[in-house]
Amino acid sequence: MDIIEQLLRRAEPVGHFGVPAPPRLGLAIVTCMDARIDPVRHLGLEPGDAHVLRNAGGVVTDDVIRSLMLSQRLLGTRAVMLIHHTRCGAHGLAEESVKNQIQTETGIRPPFALEGFADLDADVRQSMARIRHSPFLLHRAVRGFVLDVDDGRLREVG
Amino acid sequence: MDIIEQLLRRAEPVGHFGVPAPPRLGLAIVTCMDARIDPVRHLGLEPGDAHVLRNAGGVVTDDVIRSLMLSQRLLGTRAVMLIHHTRCGAHGLAEESVKNQIQTETGIRPPFALEGFADLDADVRQSMARIRHSPFLLHRAVRGFVLDVDDGRLREVG
Repeated sequence: MDIIEQLLRRAEPVGHFGVPAPPRLGLAIVTCMDARIDPVRHLGLEPGDAHVLRNAGGVVTDDVIRSLMLSQRLLGTRAVMLIHHTRCGAHGLAEESVKNQIQTETGIRPPFALEGFADLDADVRQSMARIRHSPFLLHRAVRGFVLDVDDGRLREVG
Repeated sequence: MDIIEQLLRRAEPVGHFGVPAPPRLGLAIVTCMDARIDPVRHLGLEPGDAHVLRNAGGVVTDDVIRSLMLSQRLLGTRAVMLIHHTRCGAHGLAEESVKNQIQTETGIRPPFALEGFADLDADVRQSMARIRHSPFLLHRAVRGFVLDVDDGRLREVG
């Protein structure tokens, strides 16, 4: 059976009638799509507490800026918690080599950055800088962390 | 006390030593950042099961294509489950009006689409089409759903 079909059969409808859309904690969390990470459980969040944004690497891309802009302007969040993690697939990604391979296979070179990085802490700092320098955000309060996927601990990047 | 400080104090380290990075179910889930949604709990996912991508609206943007490309090429996922939801902030978003307001305030017009939408099902279909037409994805198997945030039920969009 198709894996999505399996998930649908075991899905437990969780209704949140009456929970307001604006995040209760005024917080947006940006992290990686990594399957080992569950920010809701990890941080003990309840339904309605915080926006959760996730992409490959947890990198602050234009799409994250778009999302944070709407999060702050339409739904009132005021702070960002940024979480990258150890043993991330984007860490050490050979950007040019992957792009070359895709170009060879498809005839088209990806016109976008793959957003891999060589240094984990430096990339957290770059993502924080992208938030702090965005003209579109109302609030630039951001704190950045590295999550160790082996022991679950968060280390702040200064 | 700062809300992030509070979360850090109540965070429970969840270590996943030995859980492999490639998602066990070969699945990537794309959904909205909405604070009421928790796809991990809703679908009964275990750590290591699936990639989870989230942005404003759960819209398939270039950043989602970038992330899915890496998800499929580096970490072996083969299918996408796309979930938009009722009462979404991006539903009915007055794109030009919001952009005008930001331009008036900051002197800079956002150069990116805000990705709001007038019709929920049509936007699920557009996001599915973006996956099916991307030259960069190895697998275009995608199923799209609308989650009713009031009763927690998933309705498939054909």
